[in-house]
Amino acid sequence: MSDDAKRLAPSRRQFLTGAAVAGAGAVAAGAAKAAAPDPLITEVQDWASGLGEGVDATPYGLPIQFESDVVRRNVEWLTADTISSINFTPIHALDGTITPQGCAFERHHSGAIELRKEDYRLMINGLVDSPLVFTYADLERFPRQNRVYFCECAANSGMEWAGAQLNGAQFTHGMIHNMEYSGVSLRTLLEEAGVSPEGKWVYVEGADASSNGRSIPLDKAMDDVLVAFKANGEALRKEHGYPVRLVVPGWEGNMWIKWLRRIEVMDQPVESREETAKYTDTLADGVSRKWTWEMDAKSVITSPSPQAPITHGKGPLVITGLAWSGRGAITGVDVSLDGGKNWQAARLAAPGTDKALTRFYLDINWDGSEMLLQSRARDSSGYVQPTKAQLRAVRGLNSIYHNNAIQTWWVTANGEAENVEVS
Amino acid sequence: MSDDAKRLAPSRRQFLTGAAVAGAGAVAAGAAKAAAPDPLITEVQDWASGLGEGVDATPYGLPIQFESDVVRRNVEWLTADTISSINFTPIHALDGTITPQGCAFERHHSGAIELRKEDYRLMINGLVDSPLVFTYADLERFPRQNRVYFCECAANSGMEWAGAQLNGAQFTHGMIHNMEYSGVSLRTLLEEAGVSPEGKWVYVEGADASSNGRSIPLDKAMDDVLVAFKANGEALRKEHGYPVRLVVPGWEGNMWIKWLRRIEVMDQPVESREETAKYTDTLADGVSRKWTWEMDAKSVITSPSPQAPITHGKGPLVITGLAWSGRGAITGVDVSLDGGKNWQAARLAAPGTDKALTRFYLDINWDGSEMLLQSRARDSSGYVQPTKAQLRAVRGLNSIYHNNAIQTWWVTANGEAENVEVS
Repeated sequence: MSDDAKRLAPSRRQFLTGAAVAGAGAVAAGAAKAAAPDPLITEVQDWASGLGEGVDATPYGLPIQFESDVVRRNVEWLTADTISSINFTPIHALDGTITPQGCAFERHHSGAIELRKEDYRLMINGLVDSPLVFTYADLERFPRQNRVYFCECAANSGMEWAGAQLNGAQFTHGMIHNMEYSGVSLRTLLEEAGVSPEGKWVYVEGADASSNGRSIPLDKAMDDVLVAFKANGEALRKEHGYPVRLVVPGWEGNMWIKWLRRIEVMDQPVESREETAKYTDTLADGVSRKWTWEMDAKSVITSPSPQAPITHGKGPLVITGLAWSGRGAITGVDVSLDGGKNWQAARLAAPGTDKALTRFYLDINWDGSEMLLQSRARDSSGYVQPTKAQLRAVRGLNSIYHNNAIQTWWVTANGEAENVEVS
Repeated sequence: MSDDAKRLAPSRRQFLTGAAVAGAGAVAAGAAKAAAPDPLITEVQDWASGLGEGVDATPYGLPIQFESDVVRRNVEWLTADTISSINFTPIHALDGTITPQGCAFERHHSGAIELRKEDYRLMINGLVDSPLVFTYADLERFPRQNRVYFCECAANSGMEWAGAQLNGAQFTHGMIHNMEYSGVSLRTLLEEAGVSPEGKWVYVEGADASSNGRSIPLDKAMDDVLVAFKANGEALRKEHGYPVRLVVPGWEGNMWIKWLRRIEVMDQPVESREETAKYTDTLADGVSRKWTWEMDAKSVITSPSPQAPITHGKGPLVITGLAWSGRGAITGVDVSLDGGKNWQAARLAAPGTDKALTRFYLDINWDGSEMLLQSRARDSSGYVQPTKAQLRAVRGLNSIYHNNAIQTWWVTANGEAENVEVS
């Protein structure tokens, strides 16, 4: 136990008293291992009486039936059709930082299409020395990179602008996932085609009906963008752009083009639907900000939360959540139990890395009284996650996208949690 | 493109000549985006004509149908029954370092059992101040840790002692996986029970019929061992010990007790079946080594390999593989194209971390002649992965476990690969 953990964690022995082994003397060292007299132990022994399932049963393994509620969920009233809609990662039920592909959120503008690797083509054209078309097999021959990055939809927490709406971290903050990508640097492919001196932007589009075209400044395209074909080691799922998607680290998810089809080098941005009518932020005076690509530092407590109430009463309690920044690494997270009046530093499970999720924990001894739980992220650029009031003072109430405000969960004395706002 | 990559990677333009866009002028900047005249481009456009699948289709996502061969496989003749057997991670088809739970190898001694969280109990007894029984909900209240570790079966590559046997990296080296675990430090739980001064070992066992009991020195138990309940963010799969398994970083997989039921603090090891008749190494003179817990540094080229041949002919080729060490971090990997006569440093995708998989790449311009591919790992302890001859000189030919020798793939001029030995 680290010194930090010692300081934060009161002894748990008290709450375990009820489960202390009856007749402990009988199971002390040297006694027969199966002779424990406690009824709980007898119950445990029952599982040892039969054989389990063989190794040929599940060539590709699935979650156990008892975890069937840990799934992506969509909200029916949010969009007119599921084809152009979103579902949410069950972050309230996950731990660690990696998001399994199976429960990583989806966002489509015209549904998830099905492409074979053999049919796949990627074109690079426009202001280049040699326009090129790559097959999937071509892409596999370029030097590869591997890196963990978060992908957050710009609309994540968007419903919360006007007040506390959706009750659950999955729904308020679940348009995010975090995976280890393998792929080719976009810079490598652009250098292969040869970018003309007048090239300043790339226009990227997908093979789905929406095409979802977006303009990206050449500087970013030549920096850390990946043309990725694997996530968490295996092929991308269909719904995440199989066989090839763009990974645009730290920038809004809408730019992470799925089923990537074409990259055109241009001297100016296209000003497409996706970067004018959508994915811009309308301010109080009706004027919209655009080119708001980077996702600012943000955090959320995933447990306890409305979908993950406290069920064990007062005493030791693990408060945990996720923090991230599109502008660098998370350097710290503070947690408040009283709606932002007092803050204490949470423990980061590992040092933050650039543009990836960081898991934080605060181990407390809950006295059973109600709490207003908040978390506040800090990143390597010196930025501190703002309150909703601070964000509204600058941006007004018309926005949908880029809400990175501090979130509040009201935890009642019975351990239930609710999405609320504090003034 | 890094300087390293530039040095290693010849220009790929040559092999792409055939795919250069015909009539490139017509698709230069400013032209209509849909007007590309090349037949390949026309073909790509076809996918944009229909709608895809909605976000309600797959609450828990699965691999796309085209990847149905990327699964765990067992080898029927290897064991008498699938209940006490093994299957293999398809490492030849994966990239990056994280292993998705769905294709992470399984090893059972009496099958995978099904336990509910509500029924789960973990007992700590023996030489402790207070014998304790924890429920799953109790475990969730202790401070948690997160860390990526590899788990390798001691028998991984075991069939290769006597010569090249199984044809494919999945089968020679696929008894390994690498996940991000979330759980409680075993030290924390032992401190909760209070270890008596005479306690020097812990005996750990599972709730399955085999119980798979193993003795672990107290020093290791108090160091980095985790009582884990999540892998890659979500609940453990049934076949990996749901709801709780032991994670024993760097040590042989047999000690990573699944369905963890009991931890007894003792003054001496139990000398159980699993650490005497099994998981020991019989030397040339018939005497067996035991307490060979740590997995020595090892590596394997995953592609090209027998299940992942070169299909594109000569020219740019990505050689890639995995390296790991139970004694620390991987500091370097060398690759040989000629069976160990000459070596060149591979590129590590990221700096190695303790007791976790490291991905390496070597980008070459293949001249189309046959190769004897080998990789050789080095770790932070200064250890260098040995040849089979070096290992046999010390250990003889009777061993099954702990074969960490250099592996050779013979790549023929047509790009196919075969498992061979070089003298």
